[in-house]
Amino acid sequence: MIRFLNFFFERPAARGIALVIAGVSAGLPASPLRADEGMWLYSAPPRAALQAKYGFTLTDAWLDHLMKASVRFNSGGSGSWVSGDGLIITNHHVGADELQKLGDEQHNYLRDGFYAANLAEERKCVDLELNVLQTIEDVTARVNAAVPTSAEGETAVLARRKITAEIEKESLAQTGLRSDVVTLYQGGAYHLYRFKKYTDIRLVFAPEQAIAFFGGDPDNFEYPRYDLDICFFRAYENGQPVRPAHFLTWSTVGAQEGQLTFVSGHPGSTRRLLTVPELRHIRDHQLPEGLAELKRREVLLVNWSARSSENARRAKEDLFGIQNSRKLLDGELAALQDPAFFGAKVTAESEFKKRLTNRADHSGALPAFVQIEEAQQASAVSAREYHLLEGAAAFNGDSFALARTLLRAGEERPKANGERLREYTDARRESFEQRLFSDKPIYADLEILTLADSLAALVDFYGADHPAVQRVLAGKSPRGRAAELITTTQVRTMAFRRQLYEGGAAVVAAAKDPLIALAQAIDPDARALRKIVENAGETKKKAHAIIGKARFALDGPNQYPDATFTLRLSYGVVKGYSENGQNIPAMTTFAGLFMRSAQQENKDPFGLPERWRNRQRAITLTTPLNFVCTADIIGGNSGSPTVNQKGEFTGIIFDGNLPSLSADFGYEDHQSRAVSVHSAGIIEALRNVYQVEALAQELLQGKRP
Amino acid sequence: MIRFLNFFFERPAARGIALVIAGVSAGLPASPLRADEGMWLYSAPPRAALQAKYGFTLTDAWLDHLMKASVRFNSGGSGSWVSGDGLIITNHHVGADELQKLGDEQHNYLRDGFYAANLAEERKCVDLELNVLQTIEDVTARVNAAVPTSAEGETAVLARRKITAEIEKESLAQTGLRSDVVTLYQGGAYHLYRFKKYTDIRLVFAPEQAIAFFGGDPDNFEYPRYDLDICFFRAYENGQPVRPAHFLTWSTVGAQEGQLTFVSGHPGSTRRLLTVPELRHIRDHQLPEGLAELKRREVLLVNWSARSSENARRAKEDLFGIQNSRKLLDGELAALQDPAFFGAKVTAESEFKKRLTNRADHSGALPAFVQIEEAQQASAVSAREYHLLEGAAAFNGDSFALARTLLRAGEERPKANGERLREYTDARRESFEQRLFSDKPIYADLEILTLADSLAALVDFYGADHPAVQRVLAGKSPRGRAAELITTTQVRTMAFRRQLYEGGAAVVAAAKDPLIALAQAIDPDARALRKIVENAGETKKKAHAIIGKARFALDGPNQYPDATFTLRLSYGVVKGYSENGQNIPAMTTFAGLFMRSAQQENKDPFGLPERWRNRQRAITLTTPLNFVCTADIIGGNSGSPTVNQKGEFTGIIFDGNLPSLSADFGYEDHQSRAVSVHSAGIIEALRNVYQVEALAQELLQGKRP
Repeated sequence: MIRFLNFFFERPAARGIALVIAGVSAGLPASPLRADEGMWLYSAPPRAALQAKYGFTLTDAWLDHLMKASVRFNSGGSGSWVSGDGLIITNHHVGADELQKLGDEQHNYLRDGFYAANLAEERKCVDLELNVLQTIEDVTARVNAAVPTSAEGETAVLARRKITAEIEKESLAQTGLRSDVVTLYQGGAYHLYRFKKYTDIRLVFAPEQAIAFFGGDPDNFEYPRYDLDICFFRAYENGQPVRPAHFLTWSTVGAQEGQLTFVSGHPGSTRRLLTVPELRHIRDHQLPEGLAELKRREVLLVNWSARSSENARRAKEDLFGIQNSRKLLDGELAALQDPAFFGAKVTAESEFKKRLTNRADHSGALPAFVQIEEAQQASAVSAREYHLLEGAAAFNGDSFALARTLLRAGEERPKANGERLREYTDARRESFEQRLFSDKPIYADLEILTLADSLAALVDFYGADHPAVQRVLAGKSPRGRAAELITTTQVRTMAFRRQLYEGGAAVVAAAKDPLIALAQAIDPDARALRKIVENAGETKKKAHAIIGKARFALDGPNQYPDATFTLRLSYGVVKGYSENGQNIPAMTTFAGLFMRSAQQENKDPFGLPERWRNRQRAITLTTPLNFVCTADIIGGNSGSPTVNQKGEFTGIIFDGNLPSLSADFGYEDHQSRAVSVHSAGIIEALRNVYQVEALAQELLQGKRP
Repeated sequence: MIRFLNFFFERPAARGIALVIAGVSAGLPASPLRADEGMWLYSAPPRAALQAKYGFTLTDAWLDHLMKASVRFNSGGSGSWVSGDGLIITNHHVGADELQKLGDEQHNYLRDGFYAANLAEERKCVDLELNVLQTIEDVTARVNAAVPTSAEGETAVLARRKITAEIEKESLAQTGLRSDVVTLYQGGAYHLYRFKKYTDIRLVFAPEQAIAFFGGDPDNFEYPRYDLDICFFRAYENGQPVRPAHFLTWSTVGAQEGQLTFVSGHPGSTRRLLTVPELRHIRDHQLPEGLAELKRREVLLVNWSARSSENARRAKEDLFGIQNSRKLLDGELAALQDPAFFGAKVTAESEFKKRLTNRADHSGALPAFVQIEEAQQASAVSAREYHLLEGAAAFNGDSFALARTLLRAGEERPKANGERLREYTDARRESFEQRLFSDKPIYADLEILTLADSLAALVDFYGADHPAVQRVLAGKSPRGRAAELITTTQVRTMAFRRQLYEGGAAVVAAAKDPLIALAQAIDPDARALRKIVENAGETKKKAHAIIGKARFALDGPNQYPDATFTLRLSYGVVKGYSENGQNIPAMTTFAGLFMRSAQQENKDPFGLPERWRNRQRAITLTTPLNFVCTADIIGGNSGSPTVNQKGEFTGIIFDGNLPSLSADFGYEDHQSRAVSVHSAGIIEALRNVYQVEALAQELLQGKRP
């Protein structure tokens, strides 16, 4: 299975496809912790390390405040409350999907930016959901009790799904809070996370994309950087701005070189304790195949975009996600293809196995490695087919996602909650209905383009004469079939969707929609593949849990679990680094921005918005714009606040540099750095470029002026 | 094996790698000829069809004149003599490689264009060779006599190579003309082509690339088009302009709608009579894998180019070739993935086989189909590995090509002429030395980039733990190894190359150059793969020859062979077409150019050069700029003159539209069109945009004014 990390985590919402996470991710650091390593649970923070290394005492109050000031963008990113009047800051690229959905042929907010001078002008987002973590409860015992130790494969999956759905439903009923059972330590622990949920989210401010993503794809994952990658939303309840109990005080000084810095956000996924056979599969199959697919789609959209500016607007957001993922996966592959990096993994595993040989108390751990390898092989055989059919990579576009959702909702909803596919359980209903009934524009021409391209990929995979292909193409060429399906399906009509969703399976069947019929035709295969992959995942999960317990026993409990898009605390120091003998300073300034633009002849993607060119003299050019720190982050952390020891907002994470792309598989602090926008730079831009003093004042005072 | 048609045929020279053509191409049209179908041999022109359909009598004198007025660009394109003072016209994109090589950091002739106001200012090309066909001689009997009918596989390859080298060497000695034995009808015939060769070629005029390739990759293979895709060279001998015996008279009126039009040029390769199993391999493996590689390289170069304008200049020519090929292969794959197109191939073959069952006189034909299928399977197993190692797709860049050439020249040159690898035979020595000692700039940073990327592809193919990978990478990452090899090799130093080439194998070995050592380390595998593929090709060649003879017998001799980059005559009518219910007119005008640019906000690649913007009022906007006709063309025809019944120059082919991309596998005239620059448009641009009246006068008068 191919796992597009940032692409999945930063913008899956629109797809209508379940955010299926590889069953393989999780685990524990394989070797002794390095300085500043770790994406720590709020329920098990690194108090001792902070005390020892930085003399910093982490109090419960400090932690609770930061937790409740942190916001999860359910579409796949992070943010924080920054005023008592419900103002939230995140990255421009986290909000980009919403910016695009709010636009039309006349208004391109993504490109041109947006500012609401007062509450009335704030624009309500189409389908954005925000979550704020309230409590964490350990439910490991209850989950394990419901899953017989003898249960294998599907039986265990179903049993765990049932108890999980039960816990979530019960918690939702009791508290009214969104309740997710989260798997940690690869099945070593299950925690119940309860979130306060906000769905009335309005856009307040966004800069032009040219400055938010200055340098574009060429400078993406590079440093030095000069990006104002921010945007502001405001959460509402009952038509009024939310008054959050906790929000971050703005630091006017902002991040300082050498300063201890905390990051509170939602790292999407790491795979730091995969076994060597699992890593080998990722290195030799998953990443190369994923990259081939991304590059294919990138070339398609780049070229379609070049044919007209309206095409470019329509494809921009998808293209952005693809390019981001492509660079990320290229970096990950480079890390795994480096014999030094991979060799260290091999050595660590081999040494750990040696230490296990004499531990009768963990006699299951060595066999668990074998079980993982066998399960890995079993799912590897189906991985690509799973990705194409169940992952819908052969049916790219929103139309198919809607068609499948209608089909499966009809089939799944009559089932008992615990027996449904996970994404159709009661606890997820509201989120998934929001996607299904989103009025985000869907463009038929772009849908035909992407569907035709992905159908061609299906043909490539099976060969044109394969029965599966003939069933899907029905005697047409990929292009002909895509055009036929997209022009005749009704799933892009809201009323049609409502009718089918409310009517259930019988009405869905009666509608005889050709795209739903296609979804149905491949559904038995897709579900069968999902079972294979999930069962293998289940086997691996159990085996990893056994290994995890052994590792706890051998290495002590001061470990953090792999990232799972749950709230984590990271920390590090604001600090430059050295590359090819050159010193890269920790901070960049507005002066650097204007220089980089001039060097590149002010050409796209290095051109500055008109407002910036006009206001250059009004800017204090020595103001810091971006900075780097050693905190341990990854995709999903986008939009995370950086805070100082006083818990003040000093900046906002928006990227990692190229060396940091190895973070999925391991932490290193030699060259890897998290990249942030500086809080002083934000104020400088709001005041002296955008001249939105009211917004600057709200940040500085913590309330609307 | 992957076959990058335009990429190979339009610019292989710089690679230093043998232009290895798939052993599978050749044959005859599978079904009765359609109107205007055919890429006819000059030795067997379609006299009867022209007489019958157009009442046009093709005389020997007319044919001889057009043949000798046609010029082959050995780097992979076509052209024609257009003045008695040695002036040659071709496409800008055919000359692009030379334009880039003539440039440096101060002069970007590719982008900015060039004009020599007098002979002294004309710039001598770095390594361009032009060929003008003088005679065609049938040597089939002599070749076949030298290859025992019992010979199989390698024995037959060697025997044929030996006799071929012998004929070529003998002819060169006798005539002083470049002499190539050409395989036609997939081994059904062997012809000796003798060319007058020109190597002192000077650049006279080139427009800016922005107008030559207006619309860039987005509009490539599209129509309507608005490109001034031309450039002019002048051939010299002994320091003086050549006075060619034949050159084309310029038609001031140019191409007219409905007019019978001839195209004389060098179609690179078609594969119209491949068997169904061969086509299936192309559809299901060769094209998808080739496209994945092209898209990978496109993304790499696009992104590297975006990091700085100097990067962009360095990579532009490679990128251009890759994008062109990518679009071409995408179109070819679309044709083969269309069940209607592919089904017709299946039906035609099946019907032909039925007709063969009762033909005892061609009893070998049906078994020949089986032999082809078996040989196809044998070479398919090694196809990708062959492409990576022998095709050097795993070692992308000029440095490796030079390293291998030095290594193999040392090994091959001491052998008897007939036993050498084809590209090291005496007849090819001059051409290959010109490549080896070209002073074309090679950029270390770009070489590291492309080598690292292609080494990573090697790792992807084998898996990182494969011994072949470990041998190539020597414990480093692809990036680390590429940097090490490129920075330490000396092959980019001309003196070093001369020393090793002149010194031979012992001196090569003593130099211990790390890149040559790498070439040596993989050479046994590479040569072994080449043998497998060549032997399978030989088997197929024999079998295709048997089938070809049967087809002649059943369908008559009025057939043309598949394209082989030898001179061919095509014909058709200047004619628009209909697409999605819309009529596409046959011609575009200068007015249309300015409109398209305005629609696209004059942005790259739709921006017009300053000269064009400034001179807009001086242009007669109704002048035709581009036009389409139904002539049967393909890659390699770029730069071919279109001529009217009087043999006058009416335009110059530069592209085909999207539907025409199926031409590799079959001709169709419903929507497929060849796209040309109009001769009147060329004069209009030279006079009223570039104000180079002397050049316009030379064209109109046929001699320098």
